[in-house]
Amino acid sequence: MTSKLISETLKQRVRRPSLFSKLTTVDDLINSGFFKDGMRMGWSGFTGVGYPKITPIALAEYVEKNNLQGKLRFDLYVGASTAAETENRWARNGMIARRYPYQVGKDIQKEINMNRTLFADKHLSEFPLDLVSGYYTLEKKGNVREKIDVVIVEATAITEEGNIIPGASVGATPEIVQSAANVIIEVNTFLPNFEGLHDITLSKFAPYKFPNLIQRVDDRVGTVWEPWLLALPDDKIVAIMESTRPDRTSDSDLQDDCSRAIANNILEFLEHEVNMGRLPKQLLPLQSGVGNIANAIIGGLADGPFTDVEVWTELSFASATSVAFSPIGFKRFYEMWDELKDRLVLRSQSVSNSPEIIRRLGVIAMNTPVELDIYAHANSTHVCGTKMLNGLGGSNDFLRNSKLSIMHTPSTRPTKKDPTGISCIVPMCSHIDSTEHDLDVIVTERGLADCRGKAPVERARLIIDNCVHPDYQPILRDYFDIAEKKCLAIGAAHQPQMLDKVFKMHLNVMSDENTMKIKSWD
Amino acid sequence: MTSKLISETLKQRVRRPSLFSKLTTVDDLINSGFFKDGMRMGWSGFTGVGYPKITPIALAEYVEKNNLQGKLRFDLYVGASTAAETENRWARNGMIARRYPYQVGKDIQKEINMNRTLFADKHLSEFPLDLVSGYYTLEKKGNVREKIDVVIVEATAITEEGNIIPGASVGATPEIVQSAANVIIEVNTFLPNFEGLHDITLSKFAPYKFPNLIQRVDDRVGTVWEPWLLALPDDKIVAIMESTRPDRTSDSDLQDDCSRAIANNILEFLEHEVNMGRLPKQLLPLQSGVGNIANAIIGGLADGPFTDVEVWTELSFASATSVAFSPIGFKRFYEMWDELKDRLVLRSQSVSNSPEIIRRLGVIAMNTPVELDIYAHANSTHVCGTKMLNGLGGSNDFLRNSKLSIMHTPSTRPTKKDPTGISCIVPMCSHIDSTEHDLDVIVTERGLADCRGKAPVERARLIIDNCVHPDYQPILRDYFDIAEKKCLAIGAAHQPQMLDKVFKMHLNVMSDENTMKIKSWD
Repeated sequence: MTSKLISETLKQRVRRPSLFSKLTTVDDLINSGFFKDGMRMGWSGFTGVGYPKITPIALAEYVEKNNLQGKLRFDLYVGASTAAETENRWARNGMIARRYPYQVGKDIQKEINMNRTLFADKHLSEFPLDLVSGYYTLEKKGNVREKIDVVIVEATAITEEGNIIPGASVGATPEIVQSAANVIIEVNTFLPNFEGLHDITLSKFAPYKFPNLIQRVDDRVGTVWEPWLLALPDDKIVAIMESTRPDRTSDSDLQDDCSRAIANNILEFLEHEVNMGRLPKQLLPLQSGVGNIANAIIGGLADGPFTDVEVWTELSFASATSVAFSPIGFKRFYEMWDELKDRLVLRSQSVSNSPEIIRRLGVIAMNTPVELDIYAHANSTHVCGTKMLNGLGGSNDFLRNSKLSIMHTPSTRPTKKDPTGISCIVPMCSHIDSTEHDLDVIVTERGLADCRGKAPVERARLIIDNCVHPDYQPILRDYFDIAEKKCLAIGAAHQPQMLDKVFKMHLNVMSDENTMKIKSWD
Repeated sequence: MTSKLISETLKQRVRRPSLFSKLTTVDDLINSGFFKDGMRMGWSGFTGVGYPKITPIALAEYVEKNNLQGKLRFDLYVGASTAAETENRWARNGMIARRYPYQVGKDIQKEINMNRTLFADKHLSEFPLDLVSGYYTLEKKGNVREKIDVVIVEATAITEEGNIIPGASVGATPEIVQSAANVIIEVNTFLPNFEGLHDITLSKFAPYKFPNLIQRVDDRVGTVWEPWLLALPDDKIVAIMESTRPDRTSDSDLQDDCSRAIANNILEFLEHEVNMGRLPKQLLPLQSGVGNIANAIIGGLADGPFTDVEVWTELSFASATSVAFSPIGFKRFYEMWDELKDRLVLRSQSVSNSPEIIRRLGVIAMNTPVELDIYAHANSTHVCGTKMLNGLGGSNDFLRNSKLSIMHTPSTRPTKKDPTGISCIVPMCSHIDSTEHDLDVIVTERGLADCRGKAPVERARLIIDNCVHPDYQPILRDYFDIAEKKCLAIGAAHQPQMLDKVFKMHLNVMSDENTMKIKSWD
């Protein structure tokens, strides 16, 4: 440790002098031999922000330089996804033995779908609780401490008392730190000090769990920093380093006619619900995924008849100004920092995705699936039933517990051979993540099906009539009619299906035909 | 109304003299022409107890006598199931146009599976909330009041203030009464006055919902009676009648070797979890379904190493003395009334099944499915994907939110031609009610698979090795191996399946072969 490591900026951020002795460089850290094959490792980070940068990137470089591909492998625990520069590169280098509970990136998905990286997805609200409960370290006995070998945390400051101020996400960091034997901190001086933005609670467990008292989107029940020092003795801090790398996020998806049509259908429906007296004029807190449809909805809300709408989501806002954290969005956010920081609360995912809070606030949840079926089941994870995309994420935390659960999707997607080769509505989902019991409303650019209170056969007709693309309406009507007739004949027609043909559309698009447009159900 | 209607017993129970004018007989009520075809009707009742008896039975007799089968039809809303003497008989008479959200009985299931009774099942915790939110009466505008035409409630007393003391269940009664235009009360003088046993809260809605403060199994946060008079003007009370009919429950299932083996596997596992420090010695509150396996578990707990175990379930006990409400169990319960009534709290299903409370208490949930698959999805409702049994019930409320979620099932069931003709573990469930993201542990009489933290391919091997019946192990190993190979070849093997063959075992048992033992996967 030399004094040159302590830049003026860094001194302003690391406010506890006794921690200066922990300051080091990432090269010294790696050369110290701390990182070993087979380690269980946690990272901070959630949906592409707040993840550690310099250590993972330097470790990847170390593996590449020393031809250690496949020889330095870690079990990786992160609240949700990080960024291509870290986990995708790690995946290419065979550095990820296991990964929980959500990820984004072509290379890591490739490893996962070849089972070279063992992956299990999990409700985002439950992952941190399961982690601290020891469910990912079943062979280890006793106390929760030291279940994970090391956690690398991105911070934007460390307080006088030694508490960590996180960056742009909280995610599962509190629980990962709770479970870790060693802590590495990257203090990011490129970012502003996020002090005051967070609301952090540590997870308590039954039989010592008490009610979470959040009743409004902007309620605060925790602290603005992560109280790790209270839990961790000083000698567990392996290293503190300065980082100057920004979060590598992607540009926002552009709105197109399809996403605008979907958004309009949703906005019309919400207006109808207000008129019918089932929703208040300011609606209820919205949860919305990311992407072009979500952006179109938020855009439409700004123009629409609703006032003072609040957003409660994995990234929780006390106002609906924006959900865009594209590079441009971040730039604007930092420019308007003083104005915006009081309108935003960042919480841990065990709170933001908590069934308790989602149900209490009466959240209106909106998500996009891989596919839906005619009975309102949703597949959020596996293409054609077997190929993992990103994972379940928080979709079912929200859909399962919301006051109003909405799934929106384009009615079709293109294949190489057919511009409407995939119908996003099929007879039976090839994998199911949210059930008919979780979903209230289904929306495509064609229209909306309000499934509340409907029996399965009513739902099927409604979804086919209102939401399915015209290219697929005759195919799915045929399917339903034949299935209903056959099932009635054996007195088993509550949810008509033909188990011998139920995936015929999927099999057809996987074949050389490359389209779900089958010629008949024979 | 004549004074002879007011028996001495009844006078002790109906303590509000101004309500004497509402006393009538069921014949007078029916002959008044109050009941009309197409009415929306609610009943009290939950899992076969606390349902109204004399009015539904008299209405059935009226229909049978006057050949009104199929001409006097009702939409029927009850917290869960009632009894054969009421809804099964109604089903036979074509008296049920719609039914929500759970039922038991051969005749009603027949109607449902022929779509003559339109049925939708729903998470039991959500049904009452959706009802008061107007989700079952979408064409009606505005206030929640008068969404249901009439509710028939079984009471064991009415207080001086006019509050209803329910009987052996609370269920969705508070919310059904909240939604009803008219109320009919059957005061059951055969039963003891259940005053003091209940803990009743009315549902509040976002944005006016506040935390439920229950933190212990025996905490009380509501009132011991249903405060209907506060909400309902006197002229909404159509009739009060005396009933002397007991709840018609069935005998407990007998424990057999299979259920005892399953219970032993679970008890061993719980002991292991205590030893590993993941569960306290007194365990955590147990939720258990009904039936012989549940009984064997409770029996085993009484002998086992655990102390002071509490039960939190749809029928919530502050002790684990018994969950049996067989006719004999009821008799014993009434005999020990004074001793037992302080060890029992009856709550509404929106509380007993609340995600908030289940997660806070850290409930250990145990349920039996129709079938499971090798990746730990569960089918709780539809035989061969299309034939409705009873409905989802509270299974997913508990499995989705519990600290530890356990599904137990015999590894096989018999068919007419083969004593092990059905494997309860299949390649893919033919209907999915709880997903792989909800289940921790799978148990059969063969053994236990602890799926926590496991990737799907690991889970499949574990479940096949530990839980599947030896008759089906080679068949399912074959399936998994072929599916894995095929999916690896196209880089899509996270959850290997063969969509063209995935239901071959189901199709085989539905055919003349009448067994799931297929000869090959070709």
